[in-house]
Amino acid sequence: MSADSPHAADSTDSLAGDRTGVWLVGARGNVATMAIVGARAIAAGHTDTTGMVTEREPVSALELPPVEEFVFGGHDIDPTSLVEQAERQCERNGVPDEATLTGVRDDLAAVDERIEVGTAINCGAAVTDESEQLDESLSMRTVLGQIRDDYESFHSAHDLDRLVVVNVASTEPELPTADQYDTRDALEEALDNDDRDLPASVLYAYAAIDAGHPFVNFTPSTGNALGGMQELAADRGVPHVGRDAKTGETLVKSALAPMFAGRNLNVLSWEGHNILGNKDGLVLEDEQNAAGKLASKGDVLESILPEIGHNRVRIDYTPSLADWKTAWDYIHFEGFLNTEMTMQFTWEGSDSALAAPLVLDLVRLISHADEYGDGGLQPQLASFFKAPLGVDEHDFSKQLHWLYDYARRHSDTDA
Amino acid sequence: MSADSPHAADSTDSLAGDRTGVWLVGARGNVATMAIVGARAIAAGHTDTTGMVTEREPVSALELPPVEEFVFGGHDIDPTSLVEQAERQCERNGVPDEATLTGVRDDLAAVDERIEVGTAINCGAAVTDESEQLDESLSMRTVLGQIRDDYESFHSAHDLDRLVVVNVASTEPELPTADQYDTRDALEEALDNDDRDLPASVLYAYAAIDAGHPFVNFTPSTGNALGGMQELAADRGVPHVGRDAKTGETLVKSALAPMFAGRNLNVLSWEGHNILGNKDGLVLEDEQNAAGKLASKGDVLESILPEIGHNRVRIDYTPSLADWKTAWDYIHFEGFLNTEMTMQFTWEGSDSALAAPLVLDLVRLISHADEYGDGGLQPQLASFFKAPLGVDEHDFSKQLHWLYDYARRHSDTDA
Amino acid sequence: MSADSPHAADSTDSLAGDRTGVWLVGARGNVATMAIVGARAIAAGHTDTTGMVTEREPVSALELPPVEEFVFGGHDIDPTSLVEQAERQCERNGVPDEATLTGVRDDLAAVDERIEVGTAINCGAAVTDESEQLDESLSMRTVLGQIRDDYESFHSAHDLDRLVVVNVASTEPELPTADQYDTRDALEEALDNDDRDLPASVLYAYAAIDAGHPFVNFTPSTGNALGGMQELAADRGVPHVGRDAKTGETLVKSALAPMFAGRNLNVLSWEGHNILGNKDGLVLEDEQNAAGKLASKGDVLESILPEIGHNRVRIDYTPSLADWKTAWDYIHFEGFLNTEMTMQFTWEGSDSALAAPLVLDLVRLISHADEYGDGGLQPQLASFFKAPLGVDEHDFSKQLHWLYDYARRHSDTDA
Amino acid sequence: MSADSPHAADSTDSLAGDRTGVWLVGARGNVATMAIVGARAIAAGHTDTTGMVTEREPVSALELPPVEEFVFGGHDIDPTSLVEQAERQCERNGVPDEATLTGVRDDLAAVDERIEVGTAINCGAAVTDESEQLDESLSMRTVLGQIRDDYESFHSAHDLDRLVVVNVASTEPELPTADQYDTRDALEEALDNDDRDLPASVLYAYAAIDAGHPFVNFTPSTGNALGGMQELAADRGVPHVGRDAKTGETLVKSALAPMFAGRNLNVLSWEGHNILGNKDGLVLEDEQNAAGKLASKGDVLESILPEIGHNRVRIDYTPSLADWKTAWDYIHFEGFLNTEMTMQFTWEGSDSALAAPLVLDLVRLISHADEYGDGGLQPQLASFFKAPLGVDEHDFSKQLHWLYDYARRHSDTDA
Repeated sequence: MSADSPHAADSTDSLAGDRTGVWLVGARGNVATMAIVGARAIAAGHTDTTGMVTEREPVSALELPPVEEFVFGGHDIDPTSLVEQAERQCERNGVPDEATLTGVRDDLAAVDERIEVGTAINCGAAVTDESEQLDESLSMRTVLGQIRDDYESFHSAHDLDRLVVVNVASTEPELPTADQYDTRDALEEALDNDDRDLPASVLYAYAAIDAGHPFVNFTPSTGNALGGMQELAADRGVPHVGRDAKTGETLVKSALAPMFAGRNLNVLSWEGHNILGNKDGLVLEDEQNAAGKLASKGDVLESILPEIGHNRVRIDYTPSLADWKTAWDYIHFEGFLNTEMTMQFTWEGSDSALAAPLVLDLVRLISHADEYGDGGLQPQLASFFKAPLGVDEHDFSKQLHWLYDYARRHSDTDA
Repeated sequence: MSADSPHAADSTDSLAGDRTGVWLVGARGNVATMAIVGARAIAAGHTDTTGMVTEREPVSALELPPVEEFVFGGHDIDPTSLVEQAERQCERNGVPDEATLTGVRDDLAAVDERIEVGTAINCGAAVTDESEQLDESLSMRTVLGQIRDDYESFHSAHDLDRLVVVNVASTEPELPTADQYDTRDALEEALDNDDRDLPASVLYAYAAIDAGHPFVNFTPSTGNALGGMQELAADRGVPHVGRDAKTGETLVKSALAPMFAGRNLNVLSWEGHNILGNKDGLVLEDEQNAAGKLASKGDVLESILPEIGHNRVRIDYTPSLADWKTAWDYIHFEGFLNTEMTMQFTWEGSDSALAAPLVLDLVRLISHADEYGDGGLQPQLASFFKAPLGVDEHDFSKQLHWLYDYARRHSDTDA
Repeated sequence: MSADSPHAADSTDSLAGDRTGVWLVGARGNVATMAIVGARAIAAGHTDTTGMVTEREPVSALELPPVEEFVFGGHDIDPTSLVEQAERQCERNGVPDEATLTGVRDDLAAVDERIEVGTAINCGAAVTDESEQLDESLSMRTVLGQIRDDYESFHSAHDLDRLVVVNVASTEPELPTADQYDTRDALEEALDNDDRDLPASVLYAYAAIDAGHPFVNFTPSTGNALGGMQELAADRGVPHVGRDAKTGETLVKSALAPMFAGRNLNVLSWEGHNILGNKDGLVLEDEQNAAGKLASKGDVLESILPEIGHNRVRIDYTPSLADWKTAWDYIHFEGFLNTEMTMQFTWEGSDSALAAPLVLDLVRLISHADEYGDGGLQPQLASFFKAPLGVDEHDFSKQLHWLYDYARRHSDTDA
Repeated sequence: MSADSPHAADSTDSLAGDRTGVWLVGARGNVATMAIVGARAIAAGHTDTTGMVTEREPVSALELPPVEEFVFGGHDIDPTSLVEQAERQCERNGVPDEATLTGVRDDLAAVDERIEVGTAINCGAAVTDESEQLDESLSMRTVLGQIRDDYESFHSAHDLDRLVVVNVASTEPELPTADQYDTRDALEEALDNDDRDLPASVLYAYAAIDAGHPFVNFTPSTGNALGGMQELAADRGVPHVGRDAKTGETLVKSALAPMFAGRNLNVLSWEGHNILGNKDGLVLEDEQNAAGKLASKGDVLESILPEIGHNRVRIDYTPSLADWKTAWDYIHFEGFLNTEMTMQFTWEGSDSALAAPLVLDLVRLISHADEYGDGGLQPQLASFFKAPLGVDEHDFSKQLHWLYDYARRHSDTDA
C-alpha cells in the first residue's frame, strides 16, 4: 500500500468492525441461500468455519471484515422466499440441518425483505421460465439505472462501510460477440445504442464497478470478463474477480493434473462425467447455457497438460441428487515403456455447501483489496476460479501459493 | 558450487559423456529389471523417455549423465537370470512388450554377468526363502569388505567416471533399535563389535558412502536413514537420498491431501487399500516387513492434514495382479455447515513401470549433486520419496517446486 | 399344510388380526432400534414399506401378521435407553429423520420398559465392555430358566397370539467346538454338565425353540446352527432360520457372481473391503469376533464360483462412517483368449436401514410357517441369509425363486 | 421335437462331426475377427474355451456342432484384410496376443479369401465412409439376389452340412418406419416396389431366412426384428434370434437390477456412462446410429424396475481405449425409512473378447434348434441379448434358467 493511499491513516484494525454489505445477484438461489444461512449460523455460534479459506493460516492472519457483520441483500427473479428456499434445501439435501435452520429463520426473513426484482435479459429460456423480472422492453441504460438505485438504497439504508456485489445467479448462455466489447468505449457505445445482446450479468457488473463497488463473478456468465469492463474497473480503481468458482470436479482436476505433468506421464484421455440435481443442473441441460461452463472446465486440463490426447466433460441433470453433485473422472495415461495405466475418481459433494464458504471468503478478500487500494484484477484470488480473469495458471497448488504469499505480505503490513 | 570444488574447472558439459556405473542392490528384482530394460531400450531407440522427470522442463535443462551410457551391475540373492526375470514380466504383465524385450535381451545377459551374490542378513524369512546368499556367520566387517570389493572391482573393470549405488531390494523388517546408531561412533562401534542386528541395507549403504559412492535408498528399509550413517555421509561429503520411492497411491495422496487442507475441509477418515501381486506384495504379507512400509505411507497424510480423524493403509497380496498395483482410497470429509462428503479413487498402475524411470532420474540427479560437490542429504529430491530423509514437507507440489528451483538455479550455473 | 394341522380349522385370514410378539435379543442395538422405529412409523403412517420383501408381489399375497400389530420386547446388556439409541442414530446418521423420530418417541419409551437384562456369556471382550449383564457365575440351566421366564412373562403380559425370538445382538466369537453339540443328546448333556463354552446365542435359541417359539438368527453367531439345536427344533416342530442376514456387500456378490459363472468367465481374484463405523464394526475389529462373519461372507463366492482363484474379505472399523457401511469390491477375471478384465463396485448403505425391514419380513414369514405347521428349517427363506442353514445354494436369484414359489403355492392355499 | 421331424432318425450324435458354415456380415470387424481367431486358436489347442456358455454345464451336455469344424466366410465393405485387422487388434489391445496370432495367421488369410463385398445401404454416413460396397443404385431385389448367391456359392464350395448367417456389422441408424413392414406381405411388396428405406441388415436377414439358413442378429440393427421377417421365418420354419448381444454394462444391469427389485428397494436414478475406443464407438458418436443402441440398453431397466425414477445411458467415443469398453454406473436408491443410498460400479472389458465367444455359442445353439426342427424365435436364447425378440423378460438369471431348462430337456432327448 502506498503511503498516500486514502486508507493509509486508519489501516490498522480498519476492517475488524466494518459493516460490509453483500449484494447477491441470484439472492434466492442455492449458493446464496447457503452463504446467508452459514454466515448467520456462524454469527449465532451454531456452526464453525470449516470450509472457509480465510479462517486458516496464513490467510487468517489478514485483517478482514468479520462475517458476523455482513449485511445481505440482493436481486432475484424467483419469488419464492429465502426461508422457503432454505427449508427446501434442508428437506431435500439435509443441508442445512433443522437445528441450524431454526436458528437463522428470522434472519433469513429479514434478508428476504431486502431482495429486489432483477433483470434476466439474455439469460436463456431455461432461466427465465416461471419467474418475474424487470420489463425486458426497458432500455439497457434504464435497467442499469434501476440496478444502481437498488445498490445505493441498500448502501444508505444500512449504514454500510462498503458494498460488495457478487453474481451467484444461474449460468447464462455464452455471449458469442464478447470481442465486440473489448474496450470501454465500445461497451459504453453499446449501452448508449441500447444493444439488445448484452446479458444481465454485464449490467449487474457494470452498475457495481461504475459506482465503485467491488464485484465478484462466481459464475461462468460473462459479467466482468469483457475487455471493456476490465478497462472500466482499472479506470475506476475498483477490484473485481471471476469467473466460475472452482468447487468440485475441476478443483480436483487442478490438484491432480499437475501430478501427471510433474512425473512426465502422458495423459491419453481424461473423461469427466458430472451428474447433479439442482437448478444449475437443470439450466445446464440447456446446451446453450452449458457451453460456457464446459469451456471453463475444459481449459484447466489443456493448460496443465498441453499434450493431453482427449479431454471431455459431460454435465447431466439427475433430479434425485438434489443439491448433490457427483463426478466420475477416468484418466487413461501412459508411463515408462509405453505402459498404459488408469486412475479414476468419484467425487460426491454438496454443491452449495462447497460454494457458500467461498462466497464469504471472496467478499472478505476483495474487501481487503478495496481497503488497500488494489483496484483491477486480483490474481492472488485465482485459486477460487475455474477461469481466473487475467491468469493463465490453473495448477491449484501454485494458485494457492500466490494467495499465501499475498496473505503473508499483507499481514506483515497490516500488523 | 564453491570455487574450490574439485570439479569446478571442468564443470561445463562435464557429465554429458560420462560413464556412470549403476550398482543395483536387488539387481534381479522387478524394479531393477525394468530400469535396466528401459535404459537399454532408450539407448537402442526402442522407447521414449515418458515417465522420466529429468526429461521434462525445467529439470531437463540440467547437465546430467546420459542414460545411454549407464553401466549396470549389482547384488542379488535370487539366482534366476535377468533375462528370465524380464521374460516373466513380459509374459505376466505385458511390460516390457515382446519387441522391446527382444531388442535388449543381449544387453540383459551381459548385465547379468555383473551381478554378484549378496547378503540378506536380517531381511526376514519372507525374503530369504529360496535364495542363495553370503554366509550369515561371516562377521559384519567381513561382509562389508566383500561388498566394497564388489563395488571396486566393478568400478575399475568398466572404467567408470562414477559409481552410484541404489537399493531396490525387497523391504526389510523395521529395525526397532535404530536410535542406538544415532551417531557415527555408535555405528562404527556396532560394526566393530559384530552387532548381529544390523540389516543388509545398512551394510550396502555403509560400504557405498564410506567409499565415496553416492547412495540412493529407493525402499523403506533402514539403509542410510540411521543418524550415524548421515553423519558418515556428511563427513565424507557424499550425497545420499531416501527413502521409499513415491510411485502410486502415496503419490496421489501427496497431491490430493493439500487440496483438502487448502480449502479448510476437515478430513474425518482416509482409508487406503492396496492390492498387488508381485514379490513386494508377497514380502509385505509378512507383518514384520510391512511395518516400515505402512509407517512411511501413513506419515504423508498426518503431515499434510495434522487434524485428520482416522488414517489407515492396508496392503494385501493378490497374486493374479502380477506386477500391477491397484489402490482404492476412500476419503470422508466435512465441509461448511458440517456437511459430510466423500471422494474415492482407484489407481491401477504397473508398479515397476512407475518406479523404474525414477531410478534412472535419481541416478542422474545424485550424480549431478556429486559432481557439484553437494554432499549429504538432498532435500531437492524430496518429491521422489514417501519419507524423504531430512525433510518434513510431504506436499508433492511444494517438493516439486524445490526440484524446479534447484534445476533452474543449477542450469543457469551450468550454462 | 396337512389336514390334521392344529391350525387347519382357522387358517383363512388367521393372521390378519394377530398380535405377534417380537422378542429381540440385542433390543437396543442399531438393527433392533431401526426395526422398532420403522414398524411404529409404518403403524403411524409416517413412512412406507420400501425395503420390505413381504410388501411386494408375489410375497405380499401371503396371509401374514400385520407389522402394525407387532408387540416388541427383548434382552440387552446395554443400559442406554431405546429413545437415546434412536436419537443418537438420528443425529449421527440422519436415519431416522427427526420428524419420524418425534412420531415414535413415546412408542420407543414404552418398548424400552419391556427390555430385560440379558446374558453375554462367551460373547467376547469387545461386546461385554461397558455393560451390565446376568451374573456369569450362574449355571447354564439357571440362565436358561431366566431367559425362558422373560419370554413367558412377556407372552402372557401382552396377550400375544405368538412369540417370535430374533437374535440381532453383536457377533460372538466363533465356537470352535461346535461339532461337539451335533446331537440333541450331546447338547442337553452339555447343559446338564454346565459346559462353560456355550455362548449366549445358543442359550437364547434353546430357550425359544424348547418352548415352541419360532427363532430367527439374524447374526453370524452360533445360535440355532448347532446340530443338536436343529434336532431339537425338528422334534418340537418349531420353525427356525439363520444365519447372518445378507444386507450389503454379500447381497451384491450373490447377485453378481452368478453372472460370471453364467458366462463361463474365470474369476481370478475377488477382493472385498468393507469399512463401517457402528458398534458392529468395533466388535469386528476384534479378530475373534470377526472370524465367523468372514467365514459366512467368504462361502458365498466359493459356492457360486468353485474355481475362483483368490477370495478375500476385509472388514475394518472407520468411526466417522457411523452406521454407514461402504464396501469396495475388485473383481479380476479372465475371458475368451485369456483376456484379463476387471469390474469394481462401491456400495454405500446404511447398515441398519438395510437390515431392519428384513427383521420385520422374517418375523412375518416365520409366523406364517409356524401357523401352517411347517417346523424345522425354512429353505424358502435362504435369500435372507449369508449362510442359510440347511441350504447350499447362494445364488440370490435362485433363492428368491424359492421364496416366490413358496409364496405362490401358499397364497393359493390361503385364499 | 416332434416324431415326424426330418432330423428325427439320425438325431443321436448328429451334430458331432458336422461342418457348419458361419457367414459373418461384417466379417472383418472386431467381433468377427476375434471370433474367427478364437475358433481357430481353439482348434489348434492354443487357447481354452473360457467365455463360451456352451462349454459349461448344463449347456455343454447338448449335442452341438464342434467349433473346430466351423468354416468361416462373410461380407464386408472394409477392404483391410482379416490378418491386418487381427494384427491391429493385437498391437492396440494386446488381444489376441502375438503367440496366438502367429498360430492362426494362415487360417485368417484363408478365411479372408472367402469374404465378399457387401451392401451398406442405409447404414449411415458413419459406416460407409472409406469403404467399397455394392452399387447403391441396384434394386433391392437385385442386391438380395447377389447376397443369396454369395451364401449358396459358399455353401456348395465347402460341402457344408449347414449355413448360419450372423450379423456382426456396425450398428445402423434406427428404421423409423419399421411398423410398415409388420407382415410378410408388406415386406415382400416393399421389396417388389424397390423401397429405398430398407437397410442392409434386413436384406442380409431376408436372404438367409428365405433360403432356410438360421439367422443371428448380434447387433441393434433392424435385421430380423421386422414383423414381416418374423412371419417369413415362421413360414419357412427357420430359427432366428436377436437382437443386440448383451456383453458388458447391460449384462451387469440385467444381473444387478433384479437384486434391487427383489429387496423392494426404490431406484431413484440409474446413470450409465460408457466410453469405448473401437469403431463401434466411432459409429455411435453419430446420433442416428446411437439411437437404436440406447433404446435396447434402456429397456432392460424399465422392464425390471418399472417404477425407476430416472434412467439414462451415455455412450462416448474415447479413442485411446481401443477395443476396451469402460462403463461407470451410478445407482441412487431409497430403502427403509426413506434412507437414500448409492451403489456404483466400473466395468472394464475388452468388447470383442466378451462378444466373440457368444457368436460361437449362438451358432452352435441355433444349429441345434435347426437340427431339431425348432423354427421361428428362440426364447431360450434370450440371455444373450439386450432386446431379445419375442421376450419381455430381461432378468439375466431367469433368462439363463430358460437356457438351462432347454439344455437339460434336450440333452435328455439327445442321449
